[in-house]
Amino acid sequence: MAASVRSGKAGLPPGTLMHIGEAKEHTPKISIIDYNPTHFQEKIAQRVEECFPFRRKKSITWINIDGVHDSNIIKDIGKHFGFHYLLLEDIMNNEQRPKIETFEDHIFIVLKMLNYEQKEVVTEQISIIIGKNFVISFQETEGDIFDPIRKRIRENKGKLRKRGPDYLAYSLIDAIVDHYFAVLEKLEEEIEEVEESITRPTAETIKNMHLLKRQTISLQRSIWPLREVVSGMIRSESALLKKTTAIYLRDVYDHTIQVMDTIETFRDILSGMMEVYLFSVSNKTNEIMKVLTIIGTIFIPLTFITGVYGMNFDFMPALTWEYGYYAVMMGMLSIIIFLLLYFRKRRWI
Amino acid sequence: MAASVRSGKAGLPPGTLMHIGEAKEHTPKISIIDYNPTHFQEKIAQRVEECFPFRRKKSITWINIDGVHDSNIIKDIGKHFGFHYLLLEDIMNNEQRPKIETFEDHIFIVLKMLNYEQKEVVTEQISIIIGKNFVISFQETEGDIFDPIRKRIRENKGKLRKRGPDYLAYSLIDAIVDHYFAVLEKLEEEIEEVEESITRPTAETIKNMHLLKRQTISLQRSIWPLREVVSGMIRSESALLKKTTAIYLRDVYDHTIQVMDTIETFRDILSGMMEVYLFSVSNKTNEIMKVLTIIGTIFIPLTFITGVYGMNFDFMPALTWEYGYYAVMMGMLSIIIFLLLYFRKRRWI
Amino acid sequence: MAASVRSGKAGLPPGTLMHIGEAKEHTPKISIIDYNPTHFQEKIAQRVEECFPFRRKKSITWINIDGVHDSNIIKDIGKHFGFHYLLLEDIMNNEQRPKIETFEDHIFIVLKMLNYEQKEVVTEQISIIIGKNFVISFQETEGDIFDPIRKRIRENKGKLRKRGPDYLAYSLIDAIVDHYFAVLEKLEEEIEEVEESITRPTAETIKNMHLLKRQTISLQRSIWPLREVVSGMIRSESALLKKTTAIYLRDVYDHTIQVMDTIETFRDILSGMMEVYLFSVSNKTNEIMKVLTIIGTIFIPLTFITGVYGMNFDFMPALTWEYGYYAVMMGMLSIIIFLLLYFRKRRWI
Amino acid sequence: MAASVRSGKAGLPPGTLMHIGEAKEHTPKISIIDYNPTHFQEKIAQRVEECFPFRRKKSITWINIDGVHDSNIIKDIGKHFGFHYLLLEDIMNNEQRPKIETFEDHIFIVLKMLNYEQKEVVTEQISIIIGKNFVISFQETEGDIFDPIRKRIRENKGKLRKRGPDYLAYSLIDAIVDHYFAVLEKLEEEIEEVEESITRPTAETIKNMHLLKRQTISLQRSIWPLREVVSGMIRSESALLKKTTAIYLRDVYDHTIQVMDTIETFRDILSGMMEVYLFSVSNKTNEIMKVLTIIGTIFIPLTFITGVYGMNFDFMPALTWEYGYYAVMMGMLSIIIFLLLYFRKRRWI
Amino acid sequence: MAASVRSGKAGLPPGTLMHIGEAKEHTPKISIIDYNPTHFQEKIAQRVEECFPFRRKKSITWINIDGVHDSNIIKDIGKHFGFHYLLLEDIMNNEQRPKIETFEDHIFIVLKMLNYEQKEVVTEQISIIIGKNFVISFQETEGDIFDPIRKRIRENKGKLRKRGPDYLAYSLIDAIVDHYFAVLEKLEEEIEEVEESITRPTAETIKNMHLLKRQTISLQRSIWPLREVVSGMIRSESALLKKTTAIYLRDVYDHTIQVMDTIETFRDILSGMMEVYLFSVSNKTNEIMKVLTIIGTIFIPLTFITGVYGMNFDFMPALTWEYGYYAVMMGMLSIIIFLLLYFRKRRWI
Repeated sequence: MAASVRSGKAGLPPGTLMHIGEAKEHTPKISIIDYNPTHFQEKIAQRVEECFPFRRKKSITWINIDGVHDSNIIKDIGKHFGFHYLLLEDIMNNEQRPKIETFEDHIFIVLKMLNYEQKEVVTEQISIIIGKNFVISFQETEGDIFDPIRKRIRENKGKLRKRGPDYLAYSLIDAIVDHYFAVLEKLEEEIEEVEESITRPTAETIKNMHLLKRQTISLQRSIWPLREVVSGMIRSESALLKKTTAIYLRDVYDHTIQVMDTIETFRDILSGMMEVYLFSVSNKTNEIMKVLTIIGTIFIPLTFITGVYGMNFDFMPALTWEYGYYAVMMGMLSIIIFLLLYFRKRRWI
Repeated sequence: MAASVRSGKAGLPPGTLMHIGEAKEHTPKISIIDYNPTHFQEKIAQRVEECFPFRRKKSITWINIDGVHDSNIIKDIGKHFGFHYLLLEDIMNNEQRPKIETFEDHIFIVLKMLNYEQKEVVTEQISIIIGKNFVISFQETEGDIFDPIRKRIRENKGKLRKRGPDYLAYSLIDAIVDHYFAVLEKLEEEIEEVEESITRPTAETIKNMHLLKRQTISLQRSIWPLREVVSGMIRSESALLKKTTAIYLRDVYDHTIQVMDTIETFRDILSGMMEVYLFSVSNKTNEIMKVLTIIGTIFIPLTFITGVYGMNFDFMPALTWEYGYYAVMMGMLSIIIFLLLYFRKRRWI
Repeated sequence: MAASVRSGKAGLPPGTLMHIGEAKEHTPKISIIDYNPTHFQEKIAQRVEECFPFRRKKSITWINIDGVHDSNIIKDIGKHFGFHYLLLEDIMNNEQRPKIETFEDHIFIVLKMLNYEQKEVVTEQISIIIGKNFVISFQETEGDIFDPIRKRIRENKGKLRKRGPDYLAYSLIDAIVDHYFAVLEKLEEEIEEVEESITRPTAETIKNMHLLKRQTISLQRSIWPLREVVSGMIRSESALLKKTTAIYLRDVYDHTIQVMDTIETFRDILSGMMEVYLFSVSNKTNEIMKVLTIIGTIFIPLTFITGVYGMNFDFMPALTWEYGYYAVMMGMLSIIIFLLLYFRKRRWI
Repeated sequence: MAASVRSGKAGLPPGTLMHIGEAKEHTPKISIIDYNPTHFQEKIAQRVEECFPFRRKKSITWINIDGVHDSNIIKDIGKHFGFHYLLLEDIMNNEQRPKIETFEDHIFIVLKMLNYEQKEVVTEQISIIIGKNFVISFQETEGDIFDPIRKRIRENKGKLRKRGPDYLAYSLIDAIVDHYFAVLEKLEEEIEEVEESITRPTAETIKNMHLLKRQTISLQRSIWPLREVVSGMIRSESALLKKTTAIYLRDVYDHTIQVMDTIETFRDILSGMMEVYLFSVSNKTNEIMKVLTIIGTIFIPLTFITGVYGMNFDFMPALTWEYGYYAVMMGMLSIIIFLLLYFRKRRWI
Repeated sequence: MAASVRSGKAGLPPGTLMHIGEAKEHTPKISIIDYNPTHFQEKIAQRVEECFPFRRKKSITWINIDGVHDSNIIKDIGKHFGFHYLLLEDIMNNEQRPKIETFEDHIFIVLKMLNYEQKEVVTEQISIIIGKNFVISFQETEGDIFDPIRKRIRENKGKLRKRGPDYLAYSLIDAIVDHYFAVLEKLEEEIEEVEESITRPTAETIKNMHLLKRQTISLQRSIWPLREVVSGMIRSESALLKKTTAIYLRDVYDHTIQVMDTIETFRDILSGMMEVYLFSVSNKTNEIMKVLTIIGTIFIPLTFITGVYGMNFDFMPALTWEYGYYAVMMGMLSIIIFLLLYFRKRRWI
């Protein structure tokens, strides 16, 4: 949760770079891809300084940094590329909401990647900076989600090599949003599993239902601002986002809406399941009570009657009568028949 | 659900045409109607190339394609008529939300057709492209919903032949929206059926109620964006939509609102039914408990009394008394009368 | 419900006049009132053609048509006065939502009249067309709601004769909205009746509560768009609505808001009643259980004790003891006292 | 409720003055205060005509009328000061919502005064008309809420005498809004009282809770439009409201928001109380059931065992065994111990 | 609560300074820090007059006043610095909502500080006035939240000394908002604690859950307007807020949103906990009833049978039969087996 780690920063001057989020240990990996329609270069930088020369190159450079917990790297990049301190702070603060911020010569975008690991939706923050001839992307951990894009650049498939950094950024965002569908798919399986177990609910069932509900809510909360980010890019008047890219972004926007709709549907299904569950519990209680009441109503009075004739009074009329036993038994039988008819009339049996 | 099929596309370059939705096998059927006030021609194209010459003809051409799962046909049409790759992708993605997109020389509209099959509302996607002198419509399967429009063109009834492609598009949309009422009618019957069964509810009843509720919700979700599509057409400034058509579109808009209102009413009725059902279950539990409590409260103490006089102590005063039995019986009778009066006072009986 | 009749029209060309709504049989009645400050003429037209000359007269003409199921009359009027086909369609479609539509030389308004008949709120559609020197109003059935207005024109009371057709239209709308209060009054009585019966609820009570709730919801839905209609008239820039009439329309608007507020209050009261009802049912179940538990907890163990001493073992120590009976009785009495104290401590009795 | 009296007016021409609201009998009291920084005059008018000369005086006049049920007085004032008929109608209609209406040479404001009388929030309508050099205020009954303002004028305290009629009107509104806090305070006491009684709830408790909830709702409804009135005054472009008064009105606006917030908090507290109450009832039912079940589960089987050995068969093995009784007693004791352990395991005891 | 103290002011002229809120006794402490990039002076003022000379100094002065209950100090400052009476009133009214008000030569901001003391979220009002070369801040009590800022000025760390009063004000607001995270963190611990105790709920649990819910609601209410304050500062066109500070305020705005999101999440978690709790109570009741019903259904009929054979009739057939006892015992055993099978079929055991 945001609160726990965030509070440690209270009182520090703004711009003090400090990683906020789960602690990460691995060494950040910096990969550089430089390309134009005819040229292609790919390398893994050993030191952050290796990125700097690409700032001045005319070709398009994509610098991808896996790991944002090393403030030195972030600071060095910030200093060299001229990013505002608060922007760097946002990159390192993994509790950041998705947002878009437009600066004079670069656009800063924060997004959330989703992964479904061990019945939990895990979010990872991805920051993208679009410059005039570069895109810098920051991931918390190394992931393979951008691999198809790398391959498309490498093999010069599609339009990627022919277009600018805004199209590359679009491709990255598109890959992230497309990956949401995979997560939704897994969530859907989970929901269906719980749905099947609802007919024989255990204490687990309620907990699982609830866990799923909480996950859809937190999902909704992290995707909602994404919509604004994408529509912010579409409506942006920055020269860094070309008009020809807008139609692709509109496509991403449609997908985002589709994701929202699917999550909304999940919520409805889960709410419905809870309602049905509550209904069936109160229905079952009713059923159980009915059985007890039928049994009780029939046998408690009868037991009373046998009790009467079990009393040890010396002077009791019926006891010595030859047919007394049979008369009482018939009487009790009539009570049973009468009650069964009564219950049938009331539709209890 | 959208998620399951959609995720297979993650990472592919945009514009890779792939059918998203339930797999379809049949060969797409391409029917062409070409007309102007005085001229009429109708044919079934064997090959997609037969459509192309109509692009240049001055008369109005309506090309209807039943089946969107063959990416070659879609691609060929797209190439010849100059449609954007993403537009073609949308046609083939049957999970698309209703939307309108305005291009320079054509308008792209995505709609949902509804059908009620085997207690399920089935949606089918219909895409319509309005050009300067043509309308191209895409359906997932062959349907007879557009037959009356074909007949009107053929027989030159109404204003269809005298007006432009925008009026034809309006007629198609109008037919789709009008068909919604038929689906609502069937849903209404279903609701009334459940409503009747609610007085003697079974486990089925809750499930049915819930199924209907989920259907109204998903219906609402697919009709809601339709409203925006129609109002988008009304407010459109594209030259392809003439002002004289706007009044007809406003009529469609009114119908859309009416559909929304009816669905809203369905939801209210279903919510009400669920509430009434929950009320009556808890009411019934109450009734059942009352019966058990009355019986128990009367006979449990009485049974205790008979138990007392059934004990085998050698020295018990009352047992040998001649009227002991009668005295105890009278005592128990008074207890019964007292309790009955008490229950009456409490309005339990 | 709208759906059931509406669907019969699917596929027909727009402008095909067909009555939508409950079937009506009576012959439409056409009454004409023609007036100016000094002149007054009133007549019942036998044939629709009698209305036509008034179109050209300088004096103000109010044509009121009771019955909209005869498409010939509607069509004739439409043709002569130059109304759009879709407008005529709306007049005959009694499922139409309240709305205002501004044409070049007339304004078309659809409203809902309310009546409270046999515990049901019945809506009737009233269409009003305001022309340069005429007002045409359409009612489903003959009603006496406009009689006071006729009388005011006839007797030249108030400002009606001195003002234009917009003021006449305002008077009609005002009469309709004022009549809402009468319906609300009856609904209020109904609610109060149910409220009184809530202390001794029967199965009827829940149903009645629910019926009333559904009625308030449907009322709200038909009055909500009315607000927009009236505010549309106020903000209208059509020359047909003079600025001097706006202040009167603002008064009607205030009344509409008041009606909305009252209905909102009704909903709150009904929701509250349902809550109180649910509370009291669960409270009662609790009370009933308490009685059973107290009786059971006291007498079930005691009966067990009598059972013990009712066993027929040959060797049982206490039975032959002279004070055995009294000892057991005292023991049981102490148990009773102990339990009563325990229940008191737990505040059960 | 608004509906009951309001409907009597249906069909009357607009501007027919008729008092709507609870019938009032007392003779209206007209008090006049005339002042400027140096001059002060105060008098009780015997006849309404005594007010008229003040219209032309340069000094500021405050005419306060206690009682709005006498249509003659209202009509006379209206005629002399040139108020619209509908405005007069609004003054006499005590079901009017708070509103502001701007005329050319006066501003008309309707507000609600609140009083807390016998556990009921009572609303009283106050109408204020701001003219160029006068303020006319209408109250339903005589109240002492404006006395401090009279005193401030009389004793020339604060800025009242130095400022215009808009500042006087502000002072009146401020007094009304400040009085809301007194009502809220009493409501708060009431809520706290109910909150204390919730641990030992009676049938009364639910009713009281519900009554309070309904009161907060109706309070909210009458204060909500007040917000718009005050913000309407702030944003007003009428010359009658000077810019220097706007900052004071903003202060009133802040107080209105504070009132809204407090009522919102009340609603939350009441909803919470209801939830806690419902929780504790179902919790208690659970507790009660647990006691019955423990007792029943232990003693019903035991009673059965005693029943077995109480049967009168001639041939029963154990009965004649010397230690039979003790064996059975030990057996039953083990059952008790076993069940107690079982219940402990299930955390029932 | 606001209502209780506020009402005491009803009727007083505006601008009468009176402390509203909990009574405070301590003597207000006035600390002054005066600085520019090269100069630094810090002192504790003994008398309010010591602040006045700083108004004219070119360097930036931060006057912090701990304690707002002494109306003389507030009045003196107001008079010397030229603040409006209503502004001073707002400073002393601790029930004030967060707000921003722009005057010609100063900006007035009201904020809420949060503290978590003894399981309660305590709010404290902080007012900040930004002038051309000064910032005056008012706190209810002395707090150490601004100490890091004092230290930063003193030690000339960060940009504080280099920037204007707007940056100082931003730093104060940032410190306040950052402190919210600490409060949220404590609230989170509290929630987790209750969450753990939910499996073995006591009467306390419900109360705690409810208390936490009420706190999140009141938290939400006090933070909601803060959002508007910060965005008001960002959009402000006052020359007192420089454009270079806007980016820092945007950062604060982001944090505010994050706080809102976290609180929203808390509410969801609490609602979920309540639902789960309610579910498990009704589930438990169901379980308990099942046990009772199983025991009752088996043993009540059996006890009846033993009762039958315990009757003392002289003529009963089976009693004298040698195997009668065994036959009855076998019969009862079969009943038990039958019922156990029945319960298993119904999935009760």
